[in-house]
Amino acid sequence: MRFVLGIDIGGTNLVVGSVAEDGSSIVATASEPTQAEAGTKDVLERLVGLAERTIAATRRESPDAEILGVGVGAPGPLDTRRGIVLLTPNLGWVNLPLRQIIHDRLGLAAALDNDANCAVLGEWWVGAARGARQAIGITIGTGIGGGLILDGKLYHGASDVAGEIGHTTIDTEGRRCKCGNYGCLEAYASGPNIALRAVEEIEAGAVSRLPSLVNGDLRRITAQTVYQAAQDGDELALEVVNDTAKFLGVGIGNLLNVFNPEVVVVCGGVTAAGDHLFVPLRREVARRAFKPAVAACRIVPGALAGTAGVYGAAKAFLDQTARA
Amino acid sequence: MRFVLGIDIGGTNLVVGSVAEDGSSIVATASEPTQAEAGTKDVLERLVGLAERTIAATRRESPDAEILGVGVGAPGPLDTRRGIVLLTPNLGWVNLPLRQIIHDRLGLAAALDNDANCAVLGEWWVGAARGARQAIGITIGTGIGGGLILDGKLYHGASDVAGEIGHTTIDTEGRRCKCGNYGCLEAYASGPNIALRAVEEIEAGAVSRLPSLVNGDLRRITAQTVYQAAQDGDELALEVVNDTAKFLGVGIGNLLNVFNPEVVVVCGGVTAAGDHLFVPLRREVARRAFKPAVAACRIVPGALAGTAGVYGAAKAFLDQTARA
Repeated sequence: MRFVLGIDIGGTNLVVGSVAEDGSSIVATASEPTQAEAGTKDVLERLVGLAERTIAATRRESPDAEILGVGVGAPGPLDTRRGIVLLTPNLGWVNLPLRQIIHDRLGLAAALDNDANCAVLGEWWVGAARGARQAIGITIGTGIGGGLILDGKLYHGASDVAGEIGHTTIDTEGRRCKCGNYGCLEAYASGPNIALRAVEEIEAGAVSRLPSLVNGDLRRITAQTVYQAAQDGDELALEVVNDTAKFLGVGIGNLLNVFNPEVVVVCGGVTAAGDHLFVPLRREVARRAFKPAVAACRIVPGALAGTAGVYGAAKAFLDQTARA
Repeated sequence: MRFVLGIDIGGTNLVVGSVAEDGSSIVATASEPTQAEAGTKDVLERLVGLAERTIAATRRESPDAEILGVGVGAPGPLDTRRGIVLLTPNLGWVNLPLRQIIHDRLGLAAALDNDANCAVLGEWWVGAARGARQAIGITIGTGIGGGLILDGKLYHGASDVAGEIGHTTIDTEGRRCKCGNYGCLEAYASGPNIALRAVEEIEAGAVSRLPSLVNGDLRRITAQTVYQAAQDGDELALEVVNDTAKFLGVGIGNLLNVFNPEVVVVCGGVTAAGDHLFVPLRREVARRAFKPAVAACRIVPGALAGTAGVYGAAKAFLDQTARA
């Protein structure tokens, strides 16, 4: 059997998986915390270790396994053509020739793509967007990223920057974003900003059981705390989730009017909010976007929690190899 | 020589041109006011008349001319595959099989596409976006439309709705738009809304020479009046143009972060404002979008004023024929 190694480099975790060439399964996987503060060399060393362990586990599972190569999904901006990570604020990497490093260390052909692109490519290959000609993925975590499948192909744009959905303005004079801009979607609906909006309301006097879930230490409120409280019926948490749905609805409505996709896949911890999120989100999109665009499009949670990036990195390798 | 007829059906004017197959020139052209209020039958009759006169003029110019077919650009939404205009509020057409009608009346093969798509396709074929792999066009008139050239091809989306840039939200709680939504780019930066913002300021007491340009009848202020006053140094008009640039900058900045195009072409009367518009527009985009996306992209006025739609309709015919 033939496999491709998929590597998903996140700010929080490094994940490696051995993906069957047809996308049918992941036969071996390994992961550990990224710990970027340990430095580039240390992170790369441990990443190579994870990959070697995954290769060994693959051969144990399937003694005649052939490993075709390795796809790497990394935060950007990147130069995918040259295989270079230009800059990753969270990891502190600058102009890192990651594709070459992985190739040299593992002795395998390698490909590099953006982490959000890989997540979307994974969902499109074997997950919630399977079979769509036009698909958009939004990854919601510490930041908000995205990727576009257009006419059945991952779309990179003129200089690999396409898909930065989190940094589209939904409110010209709105909240300040980490990127320096005002009113970006990410400034409202990323994990930390979902938590922040809840904390702001509590500090302004809103009644909620959220403080009791974190022993009164508001800094410990995360988006997950908010979803949990919402599931338990907490009114403030429900309001924060509902507002999140509206903000995402504005951003996704814009994408429907510009791209007219068949499916929008929402990935990340935010999907834990379930119908509390998706019902008002779909309603907001329907209110804002054109009817034919709304009628053409499903808006669904990702189907590959935790592995979309690994599947997608493997698929990115297969696609880049096929093109080359 | 071989020609394709290009037809541009606008809310204000019907324009027909005979386009050389290689896009090098328009050898004959004819146009007249649309006068939609005269009814569908009357408009179609006059449109066929214009086409016949253009064909006759082409044969006079070039006695051995071969007319390959006719491309029609019409307001949408459309079903391009079936050649049907689904609905055009400005013209009052519903489910009109326009491609078949034109084919039957002229005895020529015909193709149909969205008017904004045609304008962008024209600018990409022989105008300001020539040669770009990724290009976005924005047409600013009574409304704001748009079209996308992605990986060297006009992009239609899942159901022909792609490119509705005018109906992307730039302010969640913003101005009411004709489409029913709030805060659409069009609600700020279409021709009528540029004029409306100036009138609102005058009614609120702003000093301006604009009223004197329309003999005190504020209803007669159009976007063109505003550009003219801005060129003459009127402060209110300059402020309105500057605000227009900022609103367009937000919308175009969003497109840069999502599409990462090589060029954005701005078409329509608004380009008459020249540097008063383009300088602050480019500044706003640079302030909002990611540096690599800004660095990759030119933002330029259209080069084919009045004929982009005709060139593009002809090109749409050639492309649809090549695919069939």
